[in-house]
Amino acid sequence: MTEIYQTSDAEGTINFINMFDLEHMAQEVIPKGGFGYISSGAGDVFTYRENERAFEHQLIIPHVLKDVELPSTEKLFEGEKLRSPIIMAPVAAHGLANTKGEEASAKGVAEYGTIYTISSYASRTMEQIRQAAGPSANQWFQFYMSKDDGINLTILEQAKANGAKAIVLTADATVGGNRETDRRNGFTFPLAMPIVESYQTGVGQTMNAVYGSSKQKLSPKDVEFIVEHSSLPVYVKGVQSEEDVERALSAGANGIWVSNHGGRQLDGGPAAFDSLQYVSKAVDGRVPIVFDSGVRRGQHVFKALASGADLVAIGRPAIYGLALGGSVGIRQVFEFFQTELEMVMQLAGVQTIEEIQGIKLRENRYI
Amino acid sequence: MTEIYQTSDAEGTINFINMFDLEHMAQEVIPKGGFGYISSGAGDVFTYRENERAFEHQLIIPHVLKDVELPSTEKLFEGEKLRSPIIMAPVAAHGLANTKGEEASAKGVAEYGTIYTISSYASRTMEQIRQAAGPSANQWFQFYMSKDDGINLTILEQAKANGAKAIVLTADATVGGNRETDRRNGFTFPLAMPIVESYQTGVGQTMNAVYGSSKQKLSPKDVEFIVEHSSLPVYVKGVQSEEDVERALSAGANGIWVSNHGGRQLDGGPAAFDSLQYVSKAVDGRVPIVFDSGVRRGQHVFKALASGADLVAIGRPAIYGLALGGSVGIRQVFEFFQTELEMVMQLAGVQTIEEIQGIKLRENRYI
Amino acid sequence: MTEIYQTSDAEGTINFINMFDLEHMAQEVIPKGGFGYISSGAGDVFTYRENERAFEHQLIIPHVLKDVELPSTEKLFEGEKLRSPIIMAPVAAHGLANTKGEEASAKGVAEYGTIYTISSYASRTMEQIRQAAGPSANQWFQFYMSKDDGINLTILEQAKANGAKAIVLTADATVGGNRETDRRNGFTFPLAMPIVESYQTGVGQTMNAVYGSSKQKLSPKDVEFIVEHSSLPVYVKGVQSEEDVERALSAGANGIWVSNHGGRQLDGGPAAFDSLQYVSKAVDGRVPIVFDSGVRRGQHVFKALASGADLVAIGRPAIYGLALGGSVGIRQVFEFFQTELEMVMQLAGVQTIEEIQGIKLRENRYI
Amino acid sequence: MTEIYQTSDAEGTINFINMFDLEHMAQEVIPKGGFGYISSGAGDVFTYRENERAFEHQLIIPHVLKDVELPSTEKLFEGEKLRSPIIMAPVAAHGLANTKGEEASAKGVAEYGTIYTISSYASRTMEQIRQAAGPSANQWFQFYMSKDDGINLTILEQAKANGAKAIVLTADATVGGNRETDRRNGFTFPLAMPIVESYQTGVGQTMNAVYGSSKQKLSPKDVEFIVEHSSLPVYVKGVQSEEDVERALSAGANGIWVSNHGGRQLDGGPAAFDSLQYVSKAVDGRVPIVFDSGVRRGQHVFKALASGADLVAIGRPAIYGLALGGSVGIRQVFEFFQTELEMVMQLAGVQTIEEIQGIKLRENRYI
Repeated sequence: MTEIYQTSDAEGTINFINMFDLEHMAQEVIPKGGFGYISSGAGDVFTYRENERAFEHQLIIPHVLKDVELPSTEKLFEGEKLRSPIIMAPVAAHGLANTKGEEASAKGVAEYGTIYTISSYASRTMEQIRQAAGPSANQWFQFYMSKDDGINLTILEQAKANGAKAIVLTADATVGGNRETDRRNGFTFPLAMPIVESYQTGVGQTMNAVYGSSKQKLSPKDVEFIVEHSSLPVYVKGVQSEEDVERALSAGANGIWVSNHGGRQLDGGPAAFDSLQYVSKAVDGRVPIVFDSGVRRGQHVFKALASGADLVAIGRPAIYGLALGGSVGIRQVFEFFQTELEMVMQLAGVQTIEEIQGIKLRENRYI
Repeated sequence: MTEIYQTSDAEGTINFINMFDLEHMAQEVIPKGGFGYISSGAGDVFTYRENERAFEHQLIIPHVLKDVELPSTEKLFEGEKLRSPIIMAPVAAHGLANTKGEEASAKGVAEYGTIYTISSYASRTMEQIRQAAGPSANQWFQFYMSKDDGINLTILEQAKANGAKAIVLTADATVGGNRETDRRNGFTFPLAMPIVESYQTGVGQTMNAVYGSSKQKLSPKDVEFIVEHSSLPVYVKGVQSEEDVERALSAGANGIWVSNHGGRQLDGGPAAFDSLQYVSKAVDGRVPIVFDSGVRRGQHVFKALASGADLVAIGRPAIYGLALGGSVGIRQVFEFFQTELEMVMQLAGVQTIEEIQGIKLRENRYI
Repeated sequence: MTEIYQTSDAEGTINFINMFDLEHMAQEVIPKGGFGYISSGAGDVFTYRENERAFEHQLIIPHVLKDVELPSTEKLFEGEKLRSPIIMAPVAAHGLANTKGEEASAKGVAEYGTIYTISSYASRTMEQIRQAAGPSANQWFQFYMSKDDGINLTILEQAKANGAKAIVLTADATVGGNRETDRRNGFTFPLAMPIVESYQTGVGQTMNAVYGSSKQKLSPKDVEFIVEHSSLPVYVKGVQSEEDVERALSAGANGIWVSNHGGRQLDGGPAAFDSLQYVSKAVDGRVPIVFDSGVRRGQHVFKALASGADLVAIGRPAIYGLALGGSVGIRQVFEFFQTELEMVMQLAGVQTIEEIQGIKLRENRYI
Repeated sequence: MTEIYQTSDAEGTINFINMFDLEHMAQEVIPKGGFGYISSGAGDVFTYRENERAFEHQLIIPHVLKDVELPSTEKLFEGEKLRSPIIMAPVAAHGLANTKGEEASAKGVAEYGTIYTISSYASRTMEQIRQAAGPSANQWFQFYMSKDDGINLTILEQAKANGAKAIVLTADATVGGNRETDRRNGFTFPLAMPIVESYQTGVGQTMNAVYGSSKQKLSPKDVEFIVEHSSLPVYVKGVQSEEDVERALSAGANGIWVSNHGGRQLDGGPAAFDSLQYVSKAVDGRVPIVFDSGVRRGQHVFKALASGADLVAIGRPAIYGLALGGSVGIRQVFEFFQTELEMVMQLAGVQTIEEIQGIKLRENRYI
């Protein structure tokens, strides 16, 4: 038996200083099981913690006398103008954080003016998410494949019909990570997953069961399949090594998404930001790189861009904004990152996002 | 005068999330002196702590699109199929943890389906341990030599008669380590040691007295002696350097067991996992390598295998399982490691144990 | 509405052991908002903390039998004799710490016998500061430029008229850093800034508004402008890289001031002391180097001098001395650093400041 | 006015597990000012703490099958047999710890069977110390020189007359270190210093005054002076660099004593054990090396010997033993170190002290 899951329905302006405040505040309004699911990492949280600490491995040198004023975070990406290179990562089940779910988050992100990645495990249909965000919203679709390719074709068709501009194949979650917090909380999914309802039984499942229902045996052929049938750019998400870059690109991927799933999957692996250094060298400008995992500050966005990322995605912070302020709250979170990024740009002496990508960080020799 | 030692007699399923839980739970059911003896490390516990921390020195890179599904932990070792490369380390006196002692632990490990190493300091006879586990159980015998070679011959004969498939010569405990917890607890051995009763006076001794009764002056000749008289494969346990590999192999050892005795012997030495890197290079595939010390997670098993180990032994965690659930509890512990290992294999993109041994870990530059 | 700001008006001898004591004592006498503004660092205070920790990256080797006795801290700088190479950094609004403001601090520093740098954001006029210190005081002027060059000329004229011997162009604060403590305290400036009143509206502003009123778009042309119109030596403050050294020197700067603004500006950047190693190599003796950020001990002064600094500036500690003891208190702080420096010199076996600059520190390999 | 200083007068066996216990127990029986003086380090105690932590920088590899049994700690040094290479460091004013002062400590050390170094600042005369220890005791004399060479000659004559076998010139304490604990405690010396009473006024002085009364301006000439006038081997104490080795040896020193005065003098310098690596390379076997600072375990003694030391001196631990058990207590402390050293030798596979000096430690790459 599943108890009724009662979460926040907030909508409006939040007062906060930083993302650490926001996390603590969100814990007050999201039920324990949902908050545990959203906030926690895998195993001993070594990799989870390293994700954030790793930004200390590379240092931004402040530069002076660089003739900079009111730097701009605007980013031209694949022919479209984004307000900043900060985009929305795919996150399952926004309904855990706010009853308005993805309708509020998609609206807030569209109002901010950046890319929104729809999760396969969203609490709303793609149509609802598209409608809430408006026809001009820049939306991508993150894909957890079914074991049944007929279902996969149907889902890809839906994504195209709803105007998705790219498909993100999450490849690092073919089983659930060791989410001990969920097991301690006895957490099962309280909400339906309408996008994948044809292969997920939905409400009342553990995370292991959820991941077990989707396809484990991912291979380069799956990339080829999506490329062929979607005619959309395909990003492979969860890449952390040179070897995986080559495997993904050989299969036709149009972009690489560096991530360790926010430290929620394999504990004992590297920080995503450390892996970015390896991956960006291997990609060497051939395709765009998206980065996520551990981003909590404008300086983190700056460091990821200076390390080869073209776009930087945020997950948990955006969900906390959604929990505390609905569409307004999530927009504030993006504005928070933009404001900090602008400050960092001014102090680092760069006027544009493109310039950041030419910056050389100083390796921290004392960690 | 020795007080009566009253420990757990539990048998049945345990609820636990991880090995840290298990340790805390075991502390509740094992008497203070026994728990201190089992759980503690030597001196300032520097080496003890390093054992576990050292796994952070090498990182597993998650790999995607590797066409992996339901990876298998099966291991073919010396012609026998093991359910996994995770085996039972020799641990003295299981009776400290559970009144059923080695009869329960040998049964549980046999039911799980892996190698069980009988300790010279077991609380049961070899016959009892063999009988509890059944005739097909895969058992090795760990040897603390007597100063008297006649006694040694008798013990080796018993081991052969009871079907031991290998002899493990523990060479790193020619004196007891600096076990301050035992001294603070005033701990003396409350139980008999029937296997070595011909040279150990048994009940009421301190650890120093126990070690003092066995042979200190181990040399390559002892390896030769055991090889000659047992006609069984001989593993030298406690090897941490290239030099010791050569000394052991020159004397005819058939396997190398990398260990620092769980941080219980020499404090101020390296983590066993760090030493494994040196040893596996020196062994270079000539003989099998067994590894123990500090293993608490499936990722640790994976990292040891990827660093050259053929088998990975666990000690304290198995004993905690024994304390809390008898034969069922110890089997659950092996299943815990297997389940975590399977998850790590899926996320690291390897289908078989053999593939792990070809994996390259990424050295952590930031420790 | 701004509440009345009531701070210390102390004048007299302070009892203290070290600068950490002094900070705690100062917190008792300075209002919360003012103390937060003075003491805090930016963002996650990573860089703030690194500033002090970085001194552990280089070690002083004690030297024996060096024939040293009563070493002298006297420093001949640009033809003038200073009691020591320890000088007063520019710090805004001394009136936050003591009602007597810069009149007391300038008097105390003059009595001690070293350089005093007047902040553009001082709570007193340049005339008042000069008068309090006396005609022979060695004063420099730190410049936050206006967006209006007419105003800039007027301010430079005032500085010259008041006998400033150098102009320090602070180039690392073209926007305010992320001062979260100020935001948590709702801190706005309670005091007027008479030196820059022609472009700053003054009382009741946030730090962001203060920095916003001054010139953001600093470039080498501004250095040229000041050099041309002041005919005084110009120091560029906030330099942390080889690249900035060249930019400043090419524009005609006569000195380089290594600083990260006490960790108050860009968080996620290097410790200033670590940057000093890079900068002093790049400067290579062409111009003098001033160093600040994180100096709390005589050994820090020694290490900075041995790393290429010619002068070492202190900020917060001096202000705490001012808060607790007025002109006497701030002088005591300089004497504290001198006393510790003398002890370090004796133990390191150097008789003069010049000798320190030839010393080689030992890099700490174990951090 | 000086209050009466009432300290321990204990004599007899102490129960303890390790030196950390002993320190805590000693704190109970020594007055606060005296205990602060004995136990504390300089400044931020960075160097003090590093002294002990530095032993983790080099690791002992346990070695097996080395044919070792009952290893011997005996050391033949300059023609005399010592029970072990562990000797007594010079420590001022044993009377602070035990009313019996150096009479008890010299007796205990002689009974143990190793070298005892008499401090210039002893609470007893050389005659008393000699008499308490007996005619065959192996005693060295540590020299704080007077500014007056006549006095120096007299003291050297006394040392010779009392059978000192070497002179130790402490060269790293030409001023007092920054002993903040003493200043917080308002500590002044409560006891007379009979050996140097001709140049020290004694009771009621601060440490700064004590050091100020002795000679600051030490130079190679002072080594030459002592060599010439004592005709005894001269050790220069406080050496931490190659440069100082050469300066001392050129002046005729017969031995090098690596020490940073237990972290009591210059804070911000290296751990003594780290410096030992540099010094032993520079000495290259030309003269004996004595090591102290931070030794709290048998493994520390082993590591120092393996890093080039010929003798290892202990200070604070011995004084705590003296406080708690008089001559018996201090002997127990030496026995504690010997017992631990024997265990380490057995586990590291070395039979003699000479073999330790040929051992290669493994550098810890993960600190």
